[in-house]
Parts: sequence; structure tokens; C-alpha cells
Amino acid sequence: MSDGVGFVTWRAAQQALVERALNDWVSPDAPAGLGLAMRYAVLDGGKRLRPLLVLAACEAVQGNAGTALRAACAVELIHAYSLVHDDMPCMDNDVLRRGKPTVHVQFGEAQALLAGDALQALAFELLVPDDGSTDAALSATLCRQLAQAAGAAGMAGGQAIDLASVGSALDRSALEAMHRCKTGALLQASVMMGAATGQPSGHALACLRRYGDRLGLAFQVVDDILDVTTDSATLGKTAGKDAACDKPTFVSLMGLAPAQACADRLLDEAHEDLRNSGLAHTETLHALADWVGRRVS
Amino acid sequence: MSDGVGFVTWRAAQQALVERALNDWVSPDAPAGLGLAMRYAVLDGGKRLRPLLVLAACEAVQGNAGTALRAACAVELIHAYSLVHDDMPCMDNDVLRRGKPTVHVQFGEAQALLAGDALQALAFELLVPDDGSTDAALSATLCRQLAQAAGAAGMAGGQAIDLASVGSALDRSALEAMHRCKTGALLQASVMMGAATGQPSGHALACLRRYGDRLGLAFQVVDDILDVTTDSATLGKTAGKDAACDKPTFVSLMGLAPAQACADRLLDEAHEDLRNSGLAHTETLHALADWVGRRVS
Repeated sequence: MSDGVGFVTWRAAQQALVERALNDWVSPDAPAGLGLAMRYAVLDGGKRLRPLLVLAACEAVQGNAGTALRAACAVELIHAYSLVHDDMPCMDNDVLRRGKPTVHVQFGEAQALLAGDALQALAFELLVPDDGSTDAALSATLCRQLAQAAGAAGMAGGQAIDLASVGSALDRSALEAMHRCKTGALLQASVMMGAATGQPSGHALACLRRYGDRLGLAFQVVDDILDVTTDSATLGKTAGKDAACDKPTFVSLMGLAPAQACADRLLDEAHEDLRNSGLAHTETLHALADWVGRRVS
Repeated sequence: MSDGVGFVTWRAAQQALVERALNDWVSPDAPAGLGLAMRYAVLDGGKRLRPLLVLAACEAVQGNAGTALRAACAVELIHAYSLVHDDMPCMDNDVLRRGKPTVHVQFGEAQALLAGDALQALAFELLVPDDGSTDAALSATLCRQLAQAAGAAGMAGGQAIDLASVGSALDRSALEAMHRCKTGALLQASVMMGAATGQPSGHALACLRRYGDRLGLAFQVVDDILDVTTDSATLGKTAGKDAACDKPTFVSLMGLAPAQACADRLLDEAHEDLRNSGLAHTETLHALADWVGRRVS
């Protein structure tokens, strides 16, 4: 896996696996077009970074692959719902996502609101199958991890800080705190949910937690860099939004080159966390950290 | 409990218990005002019918009261979040709820959206405590019940049908199907989650499931009756909305007296389900069915 080719092959295979599972689990049968809106929000798009982190962490701890696939899809459903709601007129009012019209543009605001709500419920439903395939204690742990990462102390809380920060002068520590909630919590939870499918030592878990934290923050720093260096067509979403909305970013706070150096340092530390973990199969987690650093969209 | 005084005392005590628990579990500390919006949406309001159903069903099966209190609050958080989102301008655009300005009027639309999202996550978090107080298998079962009732096949799906039904001529069977999803699923889940905290027989569970279904439908029929017979001040929300929005209701479809007869019949059947259950402690569930039939708001 240390070679780029091996990672690219692994990534494509896992992305296809996640896509098939989401296609099975997000039913078109939900009434009155709701299922179609949910599928539009979820299928055929995105890097699937969060699912890949779950699956790679599962690999690192030699965990239960079937449960990890459910967790991977659950995390992606939370991410997808957050994008649907975040794009709505009362939030970021964005019309383009993954190169397509956003859900409320395509289906109307009310349906977008409901689709997001139903995707969040489905995320938790995926974690508690009734078929005996998942140990109940593991199901409960995964629900707890996901609920905490998605809720007021995690993603939703981070979005509230983000809303309140428009036009304000956050310092770097406040900016980091916001992003640790807004995007970091779910990225870190992806790693920890994958890890929960196995039996890693407490030391390995602590290392993975730090890896997830650093990778999550680096992801956001790179996001801020891409927002000013990349065009909308490449991003698949509207570029330059942060500056246009007068939102504080790592780039506006530090400048472009220092922000890149900050991302590089965080990812170096993430690699170091993996080396310190004592886990034998961290090649893919290493490769994912590189991918986060090198991504262009 | 068969006497009204006993039920009134029980109800007041349980409402106070739920209020205290919600006050503890919905923290004001969530960042940037999010916690305040969440508490505004949840505390100090509502009949708490769903929590009371959970607690009464727990009593009927002599289940685990501590877990039932968590389930009761989780169901109420789902109900509260659905009201916040349902009141938003892109949905019902309502400005009055429980006699107070709705959440988006008080805190803005973006904060209302996030508060609803965070309340849903918190509902699931409540069901999976990390303190050893709840058996993991029971936690997983409760999460499954709640997710299914809240999601695309339940409440969110019913709301999508409701949206699509404005101005259309639903027949009675379609109207019932909509309400079985929109409000019935969560009311029935309240009964079944309370039942899950104990070890009732399969027969008793089936009777409770039917009781929950009939009570849920009766609740909606009564809701439709109150919407045309009661003023906004008594309801604590805007009266006459359904007719104003050209929404099909049991009253518009059947007329007032037949709708009342329908509610009475459903509640008679719900009482019969309880008598058939073989359970020894169904007095409170009986009293709750009476309460649903007699309520004036």
C-alpha cells in the first residue's frame, strides 16, 4: 500500500463498495419523492473521505469489515445531510455541489429539509441492524460516537460557531476550535468508529484519536487553501465563498504559504501518530493522510 | 389509576420528571447560542404525550424505569426537532407554538435549522449512555425503533406526503396512511420503546402495537377536530391552519360529527387492545387513551 498505485486501486475499490452499499441502503421507495431527494443528496458524488477513513481504520485494527461498511455509510449519510442543510438559503445559500444543483434547488427547500432530516435518522438506523450481523455493544458504541460527533458538541455546534463568526475576527485558536467541531469531529469519529470494529490497545486508540484530530484540522486548512486557489468547476462547488461571505479562514488569518506549511506539519504529525501506534496495518491510513494533503478538490 | 385524580397526579409527577431530565440533558453550553435555541425548543412546553406513553408502557411491562426515562426524553427530542423544522418558513411557516414565538422567529432560521439537527442527534445520544446503566442490546433496539419511526418510512416520510398533499384530494385511506407515518409512527414507537424496557410476551407486544397504532390515529383525528373547533390561544398554535392551507383533514373529508365518532371508535378499540394484552398494569395506558380523546389542546 505504500506505493501510490496500490492506494489508488484500494481507494477505487472501496469507493465502489461504499457506492453500492449506499445505493442499497438509501431506498428510492420513501414516499412523495423523499427517497429520490435523499438518493440525489448521497449517491454518485464526493470523495467518500469519511467512509475511506472508517474502512482504513478497520483495516488497521483488523476489525469487522461488515460492520465497518455500515459505519462508513452512516458517517457519509451524516456528512451528506449536513451538506444539504448547509446549502439551504437560510445557511450558505449555495446552488452548486459536487458539480450539480444543490438539493433545495432541485427538489425545493421543504423537501431538502426533510431529506436531510431523514438521512440523519437513516445513519443511526444503519448502525443497529436487526439481522444479528453486529454485536449490540458495538452498535451502541458506534451510535454514541456518531451522535456525539454530529451533535451540539460536534458538527452542529461547529456550524453554529461558523454562523456566528461571519464578519468577526476569530483568532487562530478560535478558528481551530470551530473547525475541530465543524469538520474535525466527524472526520475523527470516522477513524474512531473504524477502530471500534476491532480490539486495539488503549495506546493505539489514543494514537488514532490524535491522527484523526490532526488529519481533520489539516483537511480544513487545505479546504481553505483550495477555496482561494481553485476554480468552481474543479471544486464542484462555488469557489471563493469564504472571502465573499467575510468568513475567517486559515488563509485569511495566516496567509497562503504559512497555511500550506501548517497543513504539511499537521499531516507530518498524523503520520508520526500512526508510526507510534504500534499497529501493523496503517499503510492505508498513511496514504489517506497524503491524499488529504495533495487533494485538488 | 382508574380514577381521574390518580391519573392527574401520575401525569403531573411524570411530566415534572421528564422536564427535569430534559433540563439536565439539553445543555445550555452548546456553542454560539445553539444550546439556548435547543432548550427553547424543548423545555417548558407541550403535553409530553410521547414521554408519558413511554413511561406508561414501561409501567405496563414492569420495565427498567431509568432506561424508559431516557427513551421518553429521546422521543420528545425527536418530536421537538420536528416541530422546529416544521414551523420554518419553507415548511408550514408558523410563528406561534406552545404560545411562544417559534424557534426561527426567536433565533433566526439558520439557528433553528441547526437546533433541530442537533436535537435529533441528541435523541440518539441519550439512548446509548456510556455509564453502564443501560444494557447494550436494549440500547440498540431503542435506537432502531426511534430511527425507523423518525425516518423516511415514518415521520419524515409522512411529512413529505403531507407537503405533496396540499390542494390534493386524498381519500380516507391515503389520509390515514399519511398520518400513520407523520404522527402515528412516533406515538406507536413511544409505546413500543416503553415496552422494550421490559420482557412482555409476543402476544402482549402485538396488542401494544395495535394500541399504539389506534391511539396514534385517534390523536390525529382529534387534532383535526381541534383545528376547526378551538381558538389559537387555547391551542397555543395557529388554529384553522389546515383549512387555510387547503390541507385534507379527517374533518374536511368526513365532517365534524363522523370524525368525532371515528376518534371514539379508535379509542374504544385501543382500550380493547389493552384488555386483550394480558398485561396486569395497563391502567395508565387506558387513562392516556382517554386523555387523548378528551384533550382540548
